[in-house]
Amino acid sequence: MRVNDNHYRTIWVDNNDSKTICIIDQTCLPFEFVIKKITTYKQMVDAIFNMEVRGAGLIGAAGAFAVYLAALEAPLDNRFDVFITAAAAKIKASRPTAINLEWAVDRMLNKISTITDCIEKQKLALLEAQQIADEDAEYGRQIGLNGLPLIEAKSRQKKGGVVNILTHCNAGWLALVDYGTALAPIYAAHQKGINVHVWVDETRPRNQGAFLTAWELSVAGISHTVIADNAGGLLMQNGMVDMVIVGSDRTTFTGDVCNKIGTYLKALAAYDNNIPFYAAVYSSSFDWNISNGVKEIPIEQRSGNEMRFIKGLDSNDKLTEVAIIPHQSPVSNYAFDVTPARLVTALITERGVCSATKESIAELFPDKLHL
Amino acid sequence: MRVNDNHYRTIWVDNNDSKTICIIDQTCLPFEFVIKKITTYKQMVDAIFNMEVRGAGLIGAAGAFAVYLAALEAPLDNRFDVFITAAAAKIKASRPTAINLEWAVDRMLNKISTITDCIEKQKLALLEAQQIADEDAEYGRQIGLNGLPLIEAKSRQKKGGVVNILTHCNAGWLALVDYGTALAPIYAAHQKGINVHVWVDETRPRNQGAFLTAWELSVAGISHTVIADNAGGLLMQNGMVDMVIVGSDRTTFTGDVCNKIGTYLKALAAYDNNIPFYAAVYSSSFDWNISNGVKEIPIEQRSGNEMRFIKGLDSNDKLTEVAIIPHQSPVSNYAFDVTPARLVTALITERGVCSATKESIAELFPDKLHL
Repeated sequence: MRVNDNHYRTIWVDNNDSKTICIIDQTCLPFEFVIKKITTYKQMVDAIFNMEVRGAGLIGAAGAFAVYLAALEAPLDNRFDVFITAAAAKIKASRPTAINLEWAVDRMLNKISTITDCIEKQKLALLEAQQIADEDAEYGRQIGLNGLPLIEAKSRQKKGGVVNILTHCNAGWLALVDYGTALAPIYAAHQKGINVHVWVDETRPRNQGAFLTAWELSVAGISHTVIADNAGGLLMQNGMVDMVIVGSDRTTFTGDVCNKIGTYLKALAAYDNNIPFYAAVYSSSFDWNISNGVKEIPIEQRSGNEMRFIKGLDSNDKLTEVAIIPHQSPVSNYAFDVTPARLVTALITERGVCSATKESIAELFPDKLHL
Repeated sequence: MRVNDNHYRTIWVDNNDSKTICIIDQTCLPFEFVIKKITTYKQMVDAIFNMEVRGAGLIGAAGAFAVYLAALEAPLDNRFDVFITAAAAKIKASRPTAINLEWAVDRMLNKISTITDCIEKQKLALLEAQQIADEDAEYGRQIGLNGLPLIEAKSRQKKGGVVNILTHCNAGWLALVDYGTALAPIYAAHQKGINVHVWVDETRPRNQGAFLTAWELSVAGISHTVIADNAGGLLMQNGMVDMVIVGSDRTTFTGDVCNKIGTYLKALAAYDNNIPFYAAVYSSSFDWNISNGVKEIPIEQRSGNEMRFIKGLDSNDKLTEVAIIPHQSPVSNYAFDVTPARLVTALITERGVCSATKESIAELFPDKLHL
C-alpha cells in the first residue's frame, strides 16, 4: 500500500542487507511512521510479542522470517537442527491464538529439513520466508477481489447509495504483508468507485481500530468514522450498517471464527438485525484439526497493562502514556473471542466465498479437508 | 455511602447555606474527590450537561434542585412563572434520553403551581427537591433489597461459591442520590456476607465503569475486575458470568430498556448463553407513554471529543488529557442504546421484581399503568 507516495509492505528484506528484516513498528502508529530493523530471531520474537508486528497474516510472515534469522544465527554444524527447533518453539509461543504463526513456522521447518547443508538451509529459509510473504500478500489481493461482488451487490441494491460496512480491530494491509483481509474488499470497492463508508470499532484495549484501521483508511482516502466498541449494536438496530466484515486469527474447519475480543458481540448484533456478517480468512488461518472453536481454541491472555495504560498526544503534541484504571482495581485482558459458525453469513477466502460450514469449506479446500 | 469514613450522598443542600447545592464532581473521579458548590440553575444545567452529575436518578434530583435554584433567581412578581418555565425547558434539554430529568422537572413545576406566593413557591421547591432526593435514595435501597434474593439464590445454587455479576457503565450510588440501582443488590449481598465478584465493563467512551464503578467497589471493598467492553461475550461463553445487572435511563411500559451504549450487546450475549439479564429500574425511570423503545426513545449524541480525548495520570501522577483518535478521522458518539424486552429476564424495581412485559409491569404499578 502507498504511504507518503512510497509503496510499502509490512515486512521486507532490507535492500542493502539480506540479513536484516525491516518492519513497520505498528506500536508507533498512528502517531509516528517508524521502520525498524530486525537482525536476530529473538528481536523478532519480541516484535511479535509486543505487537510491533501483529495481525494473523503478518505474524505468520514474521514468524517465517524469524526462522530465517535463527538459521543465520545457528551453529553451522550438527547443532544446527537443535538450535532451530528450540528457536521455533520460542517463536510459536510468542502469540498462541493466531494459527498462521504456527503454520508458517512449521512450513519453514519442513522446508529446510529437506536438505542437509547448513548454508543451503539458510538460503532456502530466506526463499521460503519470502515465498510465504508473497503468498500472504497475494491471498489478501484475492480476498479483495472475491469480497468485492458482495459490496457491489449491496451498492446496486442501494442504487449507488453509500454502503456502510462495520469492521472490528485491524484486518487491513497492516495485518498482512499487504492488502489485508477484511479491508481488502473495501479497498477493491473504493478503487472501483463504489461509495463505501466504514464504521471503525475503536477496539479496546489496544485500540487497533482507532490507531491502525482509521490510519489506513485515512491514508487511502476512504470515508470512515471511529466509534466506541459499544456503538455497533445501536447502529445496526437503526439500519446504519449494511454488512460487517472482520478478519480471523483462527477459523475451525467447521466455520467458527476466532478473532479480536468483541467480534462475537458484533456477530450477535448482526444476526439479531439480519445484517450479513462476513469473516475474511485465507487457507493458512484455518485450523484443520479443531471442530469446536469455543471449547478448543486457546485464548491468549495479555498483560493487564494494556488495559491500564494508554498512549496519546498531550496538549503539546507530545506522545504521553497515562493510567486510566484505578491502580487498586484488578483488570483482565483476554485478547480474542470465538464467533460460532451459526452467526457467520459467509467466509471470504482467497479461493472464493463459502458458507461457514464444514461442507462448504471442504468444497473450496478439498486439498486440505476431506469429509 | 461511606467515603473516607464520612457518609455522602451525591447531591445535598449545603449545611450552612440553603441556597447552595453541593455535588460530588464525578468528572474528577477516580483521580480526585471534589465537592462542588452550585448556586445558580445555569450552573446546574452545565453540571448535568458536562456529566459532573450523571446517572438516571441523580440527574432527576439535580434537575429538581435546578428548578429550586431557578425559583431563587426568578423575579418575585408576575414574571416568576415565565422565568421558571424557560428555566425548566433549559434544564430538561441538558440530557435528552434519561426520563428522570423530565419527570423530576415536571413534578417540581406541578408542585409549585399549586400555590401563588413566590416566596412560598421557593420554600415549596426546596421541600419538593429534597423529597425527590430522599425518595430516590429510598428507591435505591428498596431495589437492593428486592434484588438481593436473586443473588442469594445463585449463591445457594453454587453452594456459597463466588457469584459473578457483570455490569455495564455505572448504576451505583454515584448514579442515584444514594445506594444505586444495578449495584444496590450487590451492596446488599456483600453486606450479608455473600461471596460476590463484579466484572466491570470499562464503558467507553466516558469510562464510567473504570472511573466510577471500579472506584465505588474499591471504596466498598467488593471484589471486582475491570474488563474491556469487548470482553463480556467471551466471559459468558465460558461460564464466568452468573448474571448481568444493569441500570436503565428510560424503560418503556412494555419492558424495553434504554441504557448506556453497549448494554444491548451484553444482553444479546447473555441471551445467547442462557445467563439472566436484569435491569434495575424504578418507577420514575419508566416512560409510561412509549411502547417501542428502539423506535421511539431519543438517543443522545454527545461531543466527539469524549471519544477523541481521555484523561489519566501520567508518569508523574499528574492528571493529563491525551488525544487517542487520529485528528483526521471523524468520530461519532451515541450515548445510549435500547435493549428490547425479549432479551430482559426481569426488572428489579423498588416495588419488587417483575418480567419485562406490559402485564407484569402493570401488576407492580397499577397506579401508573392501566391495561
